[in-house]
Amino acid sequence: MGRWEPNARGRLEQAALELYNRRGFESTTVAEIAERAGLTERTFFRHFADKREVLFAGAGVLQELLAGKVGDAPASLPPIDAITAALVETATVVFEPRRELARQRQAVIAANDELQERELIKLASLATALAGALRGRGVSDPAASLAAQAGIAVLKIAFERWTGEAGDRTLAQLIQESADELKLVTAGQRPALRP
Amino acid sequence: MGRWEPNARGRLEQAALELYNRRGFESTTVAEIAERAGLTERTFFRHFADKREVLFAGAGVLQELLAGKVGDAPASLPPIDAITAALVETATVVFEPRRELARQRQAVIAANDELQERELIKLASLATALAGALRGRGVSDPAASLAAQAGIAVLKIAFERWTGEAGDRTLAQLIQESADELKLVTAGQRPALRP
Repeated sequence: MGRWEPNARGRLEQAALELYNRRGFESTTVAEIAERAGLTERTFFRHFADKREVLFAGAGVLQELLAGKVGDAPASLPPIDAITAALVETATVVFEPRRELARQRQAVIAANDELQERELIKLASLATALAGALRGRGVSDPAASLAAQAGIAVLKIAFERWTGEAGDRTLAQLIQESADELKLVTAGQRPALRP
Repeated sequence: MGRWEPNARGRLEQAALELYNRRGFESTTVAEIAERAGLTERTFFRHFADKREVLFAGAGVLQELLAGKVGDAPASLPPIDAITAALVETATVVFEPRRELARQRQAVIAANDELQERELIKLASLATALAGALRGRGVSDPAASLAAQAGIAVLKIAFERWTGEAGDRTLAQLIQESADELKLVTAGQRPALRP
């Protein structure tokens, strides 16, 4: 076993994101990531299966967290509100302190088709898990699947705005705004036209 | 140039779907597809780039058709209704006469992870095109993106029901039902709980 390295995982993630953005995901090697983090390749592989996993390791944890929150929401809460509440809470706790890392990660993914595909798959898997959590609350299909897909659309769009805009709005605020906007949009209300 | 073969494309598609379902997508060769269709491999490659394209060749046409219909919808129509109307019309004209083929295709895709990923990518691309068509109507973001994503969620769920259920409902009816259900769901209305 190697010696314990303080915050090895965080240092590897930071080094990887910097290199992926500077040189491209494809051109970066694990050896370079480890070197930049001041760690060994062996330490890298104790934390991540490969260089792609640096970008997606959090997805499983996120999925469990969100599905758990949806399952634990008060029984009186309508499905879409249970999902929005879970997204808002998770945004504040998990994402808000990591805005700079999230921005770097989005830029890496936006520059690579294969990573974009992986991201779509992770989001689809998240939608399936949220629909399952709603069914566990007694919500039947297609309402459960529709609410879950709608929630993922809200998350995706809020996330893009949060990482892409210079503004000071928090991810939680952007999620709430997108959820409100989706409500207007699906009600068939005509949004303001562009000037 | 080879001689003209009546409905070569349709025969190749039918033969491919039968073989993919019987033997698995991976295990089927282009030679076997051509043989089963009573055609040559050369004819196959005049119609499809590879055996995967048999399953996805229609996606580009579908995307153009839907984006065109959304762009041409009456200006008074709210975005979500422009999308639902485009989906309903396309369902009747393009999909309804091909229900058996659509069922076979869904079964092939459900059995193969890589094909499921490809399907997700096609749907994401379709959502991007529909959002673009809405922006062309003067709808601003995030409303355009949310309406497009909501439309794709409706299509996906209606399509799964249409190919998965024994019922007689048309895809157009299932799309309209899912769109109505999404409206209730996003309004925060509690759907009926399962008995």
